Amino acid sequence: MTQWLERQAAVRERRGQVRRPLPRTAHERFIDLASNDYLGLATDPRVAGAAAEAASRWGAGATSSRLVAGTTQLHLDLEQELATLAGMEAALVFSSGYLANIGVITALGGPGTLIIADEHCHASMIDGFRLSRSRTESFAHNSVGEAGRLLADRREPRAVIAVESVYSVLGDAAPLADLLAVAEQRDAVLLIDEAHSLGVTGSGSFAGRGAVAGTALAGHLNVIVTATLSKALGSQGGAVLGSALLREHLLNRARSFIFDTGLAPASAAAALAAARIIRGEPWRAHSVHSNAAALAAGLAPALAGRGAVGQNGTAPDRTAGAVQSIPMPSAETVLAAAESARRAGVRVGCFRPPSVPDGIPRLRLTARATLTPEEIEASCAVLRGILEELP
Amino acid sequence: MTQWLERQAAVRERRGQVRRPLPRTAHERFIDLASNDYLGLATDPRVAGAAAEAASRWGAGATSSRLVAGTTQLHLDLEQELATLAGMEAALVFSSGYLANIGVITALGGPGTLIIADEHCHASMIDGFRLSRSRTESFAHNSVGEAGRLLADRREPRAVIAVESVYSVLGDAAPLADLLAVAEQRDAVLLIDEAHSLGVTGSGSFAGRGAVAGTALAGHLNVIVTATLSKALGSQGGAVLGSALLREHLLNRARSFIFDTGLAPASAAAALAAARIIRGEPWRAHSVHSNAAALAAGLAPALAGRGAVGQNGTAPDRTAGAVQSIPMPSAETVLAAAESARRAGVRVGCFRPPSVPDGIPRLRLTARATLTPEEIEASCAVLRGILEELP
Repeated sequence: MTQWLERQAAVRERRGQVRRPLPRTAHERFIDLASNDYLGLATDPRVAGAAAEAASRWGAGATSSRLVAGTTQLHLDLEQELATLAGMEAALVFSSGYLANIGVITALGGPGTLIIADEHCHASMIDGFRLSRSRTESFAHNSVGEAGRLLADRREPRAVIAVESVYSVLGDAAPLADLLAVAEQRDAVLLIDEAHSLGVTGSGSFAGRGAVAGTALAGHLNVIVTATLSKALGSQGGAVLGSALLREHLLNRARSFIFDTGLAPASAAAALAAARIIRGEPWRAHSVHSNAAALAAGLAPALAGRGAVGQNGTAPDRTAGAVQSIPMPSAETVLAAAESARRAGVRVGCFRPPSVPDGIPRLRLTARATLTPEEIEASCAVLRGILEELP
Repeated sequence: MTQWLERQAAVRERRGQVRRPLPRTAHERFIDLASNDYLGLATDPRVAGAAAEAASRWGAGATSSRLVAGTTQLHLDLEQELATLAGMEAALVFSSGYLANIGVITALGGPGTLIIADEHCHASMIDGFRLSRSRTESFAHNSVGEAGRLLADRREPRAVIAVESVYSVLGDAAPLADLLAVAEQRDAVLLIDEAHSLGVTGSGSFAGRGAVAGTALAGHLNVIVTATLSKALGSQGGAVLGSALLREHLLNRARSFIFDTGLAPASAAAALAAARIIRGEPWRAHSVHSNAAALAAGLAPALAGRGAVGQNGTAPDRTAGAVQSIPMPSAETVLAAAESARRAGVRVGCFRPPSVPDGIPRLRLTARATLTPEEIEASCAVLRGILEELP
């Protein structure tokens, strides 16, 4: 095995594919356009304070599976709050969004279930498809027509259409209403991962409550939502939202729920505090959108000269949420650009194959709610300088 | 889908298989023989305090993947401490033990790797096998001979033998030295899940450091260890331990590491504090073993009259760690027994098919380090009363 590991490492090195995490030090000063802390809640004193208090009150860990001794009143309160926030009847909290996706997909999947998945679905959903032993067909990104055709050909008694409401790397949105129409017509379930929309999308009094709450999708029997507590909610963990019947099914059948230690009380308390803040402070979601527009405007001069941008529908001004995705010529240039930005005090996401759904290397910027106008201006100056020097 | 969910729920109800978590309220008073908080560290003020301080200092969440902005200095310190604790060169921390097992198995697996697994391996390892697309063969529980024969028949260039050092439900140990001899002879890797041994097993000055540290297995190139931070360490999360080369491979290849938010700082800090306490306070591991012996002695009168106990090698006095496993006549009796104990103030684990590796329903008791002699005596009195009334 060692020799194989050595050969693999040499191949990565030769191809320039080596990844190395750059550790943060506490209170390090940088402009954060990289993290998924979309609303700035991870360090909000109410959220961090709730985590600290829960650790002292309940202990550092849940101590066992949710089904043994790992369910506290805090977990149930969080589930109720998440259901209210996202507009669904009930919620079940997992220790990560990854395990929530695996859990719901395997518990609904199997030989009797056809899965039809958008080709841009997240790795955790893909792992769920593989584990479920369902026949799985993928459709071209956001193609409702192809999803409908695949569904029409189904042989299985049950079917699930799997999508994300806002896609992680490209930042674009799914046509949820059209997908639900197709699902309803064919008696399928629409599984929507709200990882990158909860806290960010939603309009009017539902701002920040995601793509489902306040729409015809909310509480719909053909709709199931997964959410992560580690992005806009600033904490850790994941959840599946749907009917009380679904919750009871998962509690009995989702292996990644049954055989996993419950979410740490500190993380549960932090997510609970964050969910309440999101409902009470819709300005945060509005701020993400105005910051996204300001970032797009500030970068426009550098991007206009580059034909590549916008050709694949991912120009920054078309983002559905916080994510702005800038296609780059190569893995080398995106890596060098991210490193130049970091040296100038701006952290950006650097995405290369195989972590991009369409094979195109990208800078990924998150227009976080708590960025100041000065930070946006400074970031745009840094990034314009880098982009204008690209080949 | 709704009708199918309703039918499934009706089947569960009819078969008496419905699971319902019983929430704990804060500071509820009960004798805990159910949780995996083996050393009482989840509520240790140093551990819970470290969690609280980290939440305030670093924020409630890691904010993104470890590879984007989710690695803090705390994560690296924790990895170093875990490597030292468990006697391995390097460690990589995941957000759960479940994802650590999935991550390492899929990153080493594939068509070129044969996996040979003990039939009692945990659900998270089994999910890893399925996801890895490796040919997977299971061997009879603890049968070194069968593992060797399967290995001798291999066609693949690489092979992994997968076991747990102490098994979760039955509490018995794996013959690690013999398994390593077989692995070495056939150029295979021995993957050892230390979930239920780290903090608990180990002898002399290595008490509490698990089954690998301080033995010939420690740092061996054919040995890889997975660990959970949510049991003896009282926190949340998991880790894979092995060579620095393995760590670098996982960081680049383990999907459940790359595409998951990093472990929350509070959980990382709690696990770090707990690992240091384990190294500094070997009395805790010793206390688990003396409490296990006291529990076994206290229950012996009620168990001696029941032929079933001991026949399958799982009598309480043969436990390798904290777990005592009492076979029960049926799913109904184990459920009723656990409920009777709970009403009398004693929480015990209640394991029924499909959550038992051999199909035998079991009461699962954990002889935690911080149980007092009075608590053990009171628990034994309650449990003797229940066991003596069994059919």
